[in-house]
Amino acid sequence: MTVSSFLLALVAIFVSAKLLGELAERLGQPAVLGELLAGIVVGASGLRLVDSHDPTIHLLAQLGVILLLFLIGLETDLKKMLEVGSSAFAVAVVGVILPFVFGFAAGRWLGYSPTVAIFLGASLTATSVGITARVFSDLGHLHDKEARIVLGAAVVDDIIGLIILSVVSAMAAGTSPTLSGIAGVTAIAFGFVVVAIVAGSLLAPGLVTLISRLRVSKALFFASIVFAFVLAWLAEQVGSALIVGAFAAGLVLARTKKGAAIEREVHEIAQFFIPIFFVSVGAAVDLRALDPREPASLKLLLLGLLLTAVGIAGKVLAGWAVLERHVRRIVVGVGMIPRGEVGLIFATIGLTSGVISTGLYSAVALMVMLTTLVTPPMLRRLLPRRSANEPGAVSDLVSEAPFEDEPS
Amino acid sequence: MTVSSFLLALVAIFVSAKLLGELAERLGQPAVLGELLAGIVVGASGLRLVDSHDPTIHLLAQLGVILLLFLIGLETDLKKMLEVGSSAFAVAVVGVILPFVFGFAAGRWLGYSPTVAIFLGASLTATSVGITARVFSDLGHLHDKEARIVLGAAVVDDIIGLIILSVVSAMAAGTSPTLSGIAGVTAIAFGFVVVAIVAGSLLAPGLVTLISRLRVSKALFFASIVFAFVLAWLAEQVGSALIVGAFAAGLVLARTKKGAAIEREVHEIAQFFIPIFFVSVGAAVDLRALDPREPASLKLLLLGLLLTAVGIAGKVLAGWAVLERHVRRIVVGVGMIPRGEVGLIFATIGLTSGVISTGLYSAVALMVMLTTLVTPPMLRRLLPRRSANEPGAVSDLVSEAPFEDEPS
Repeated sequence: MTVSSFLLALVAIFVSAKLLGELAERLGQPAVLGELLAGIVVGASGLRLVDSHDPTIHLLAQLGVILLLFLIGLETDLKKMLEVGSSAFAVAVVGVILPFVFGFAAGRWLGYSPTVAIFLGASLTATSVGITARVFSDLGHLHDKEARIVLGAAVVDDIIGLIILSVVSAMAAGTSPTLSGIAGVTAIAFGFVVVAIVAGSLLAPGLVTLISRLRVSKALFFASIVFAFVLAWLAEQVGSALIVGAFAAGLVLARTKKGAAIEREVHEIAQFFIPIFFVSVGAAVDLRALDPREPASLKLLLLGLLLTAVGIAGKVLAGWAVLERHVRRIVVGVGMIPRGEVGLIFATIGLTSGVISTGLYSAVALMVMLTTLVTPPMLRRLLPRRSANEPGAVSDLVSEAPFEDEPS
Repeated sequence: MTVSSFLLALVAIFVSAKLLGELAERLGQPAVLGELLAGIVVGASGLRLVDSHDPTIHLLAQLGVILLLFLIGLETDLKKMLEVGSSAFAVAVVGVILPFVFGFAAGRWLGYSPTVAIFLGASLTATSVGITARVFSDLGHLHDKEARIVLGAAVVDDIIGLIILSVVSAMAAGTSPTLSGIAGVTAIAFGFVVVAIVAGSLLAPGLVTLISRLRVSKALFFASIVFAFVLAWLAEQVGSALIVGAFAAGLVLARTKKGAAIEREVHEIAQFFIPIFFVSVGAAVDLRALDPREPASLKLLLLGLLLTAVGIAGKVLAGWAVLERHVRRIVVGVGMIPRGEVGLIFATIGLTSGVISTGLYSAVALMVMLTTLVTPPMLRRLLPRRSANEPGAVSDLVSEAPFEDEPS
């Protein structure tokens, strides 16, 4: 990619994201819905101005979701999150089991082999937390108890996803997964989060004090993102997910005395990268593969719709695993609906090992797309929009009064 | 590049840039000198953590220099710049002629053919304005008359560079350049700047008013960078340089009623990308190619030093072409010293067409590196550092009081 074509891709991303984000807000929807649709317009299904598979666009999009989860971590109160820890855990476990069982049953019912049915079930398990976090933030509900349960459940869910991944990978390789192997993956993945938060909480205050002595510009900002990037990198090294590390970094830094200052500074830069992530999620969708006029496509379309339906049902029902009172279980359940890369990773493993066909892969991709697109309007129906001044409305991810600092 | 290795490269860039930038400031030098040296430490000559040739790093670095020039444009008063227009023009023209003649003479004196000598001369002509703009900004002198003359001269110089490029490319292709071809390139390149500024000044106020009606977050910021990217893209399409377009966009938007707000917002995001540019300039240097213990390397080292010396002399003398009174000509001349990509582009054309050898290419690269590295300390000797509160000290590119907004 030349520098010129890179600039044009960024122009296409920002213009479409902001125009359709604006339209979404005017229709009372979260801006992120507009950004996802913007991706469909400028991506593989539409104008093809943005190629989500381009290495640079892919890396910038990943930086976007890492910064989003870092920011969400910075805006999250660890103590309050631990208070709802058991509910989050219960929601995550039930929210993995039900979709898996439903997906497996749907596969078997349609006559697929048990192995194929296991892949279809596995691809329904992992929630993609980015969309939901962004919607809660867009609507000013990030500090609600429901939001904390969803965020906690998504972290646990990411870890369970890794465990299932190790099982599924072993199956794809033709070996049977061992119990000790699964136990090892589980221990490392949960252990990382605990160690990162405990060690981080011990080290961060000293680091922040040290940095406040530096003269160089933006030292605190750069130290913070370096901290987040290192934790994200470490998370992946130990077999966890990048965004789990970034989220843990945010939780830790939020508790230092500079937490609010860090959040403000990260917020500015995250604004640039976050739309790149959501637009490229939309841009990856290729609607042409799902033409209902072709009989073969129609069958996959129907399978995709069935997977979407059982995927939604499984996660929504998991909302009723919440243990606390005074929690809107439907909000938690709907918040867990969006699926993302992890579902596609399962499908890709099945595809490359020859267990599932490209057609089944498209059906999984359709499920990922639909669960992502239906969540923002569904949550919007459940949650009243809060203005930026009310408590719990964080967020300049949501619209802000333009140029409030200057008379116009 | 995987996402993990991308994160590690960013960590290496930011940590080294900020640590050596801090060190530079404590030694009374501009932070940018530290960032260039940071690149040498983490790049091809050192730890090899950052590969300036990686497509993504390259694109982000280019985004950094585009945002830098956009920001400098936003901080520049077009009227005041036009006041020194004739001086800027004179400095640019003399600053192209003298280094060319000196470089040609040096080449001939060392026994190279006229064609080779022309390439060596041409590689000395174009100033790379990024370094100087950053140093003026780091030291709080961006609003000095000298800074305006250098910025104006750099724009003119970029245009003259394109004209020379068309001549040299024709020579490399073995054809002789035509007068009408040269006149066409000249007209387009100068015409672009004039049209961009005039048309931009007519359109921008309406655009800014329109945008202030949008509800979506950061509409003004995104509209501004889209404006800058489109102008940069257009500049390259008509045969001018990306940074000339970005600079023109800044000049135009600075004159709208939201100029100050735009500058503040662009500033935040530019901070992230600008260090990537300067570190990757340093990272591209490979000192191993210039080992003085090898006789062949030694000869090239000496040629590189000779080119550096005549390159410095030519630009410094051009400072005396300033027509105004009460201008420190030495500051203007030293400000014009740094060479950059354009010099390397000439050398690359010579290299790929077989006119010059890889050895001569290394000598040109050494000249680019040395002129870049000597400028910050030389300007620092000539200019007292201003604090951020004095007029003319823009800049949070320079150090700022950490966390001034919060009691610590």
